[in-house]
Amino acid sequence: MSGIEWIVEAHGCRAESLRNQPLLRQLFDRIIGDMRLRPVGEARWHEFPETGGITGFCVLCESHLACHTFPESGSLCLNLFCCVPREPWAFQSELTRLFAARTVCVRAVDRMYHSPSQLDSEVTLAAGDPR
Amino acid sequence: MSGIEWIVEAHGCRAESLRNQPLLRQLFDRIIGDMRLRPVGEARWHEFPETGGITGFCVLCESHLACHTFPESGSLCLNLFCCVPREPWAFQSELTRLFAARTVCVRAVDRMYHSPSQLDSEVTLAAGDPR
Repeated sequence: MSGIEWIVEAHGCRAESLRNQPLLRQLFDRIIGDMRLRPVGEARWHEFPETGGITGFCVLCESHLACHTFPESGSLCLNLFCCVPREPWAFQSELTRLFAARTVCVRAVDRMYHSPSQLDSEVTLAAGDPR
Repeated sequence: MSGIEWIVEAHGCRAESLRNQPLLRQLFDRIIGDMRLRPVGEARWHEFPETGGITGFCVLCESHLACHTFPESGSLCLNLFCCVPREPWAFQSELTRLFAARTVCVRAVDRMYHSPSQLDSEVTLAAGDPR
């Protein structure tokens, strides 16, 4: 069993959009809604007063969603770790639309959370959705 | 400018250690202390009642630290996104020691948060520590 983590960098974004917490909340809501993710409680948000950069983090039943903005560099870094199968979100077009990103780099990293040695170990296999 | 994200999977761990929140808090404290990271507020912890799996997340001035445990699979997945230069932590030996991991896989992923197009854009360069 393995999950996927999408690691996303958007560059050349409009600086003001990266200081706009309501817009970042919209981004989270869209990803969570479109991908049928289940948040565990409210997302947490933090603004860094010096630059206006924002960090957002949401614990999900399916692992986590995080973003960091760097208005001073025009960039946004996002992680979505999803331990159940999902189609990728339209990171490229949506980040271009919401933040006027000039380039968006999306990497999908395999996250193997099933121990290869599990079958000969003492732990019990759970069927289906890991949560 | 780019940061590093360490993406770590520990497999074949002792299931009970993965349900042990004080042990996971120790792990976070050790990483944060050893790497001179600066948390923004308290870490957030969530236990999944069905499996006893635990998610922990800490927002840092240097980005974030997250872990997810899967006791039913004997595994632990960890992310440390660090946007300032740091030597890697001893993930391999420490996860083996704390959770009796049989194998630990550590990947270091480049996180570029400086827009390549920045020099010809309207955003202002900030010197030094991004926070």
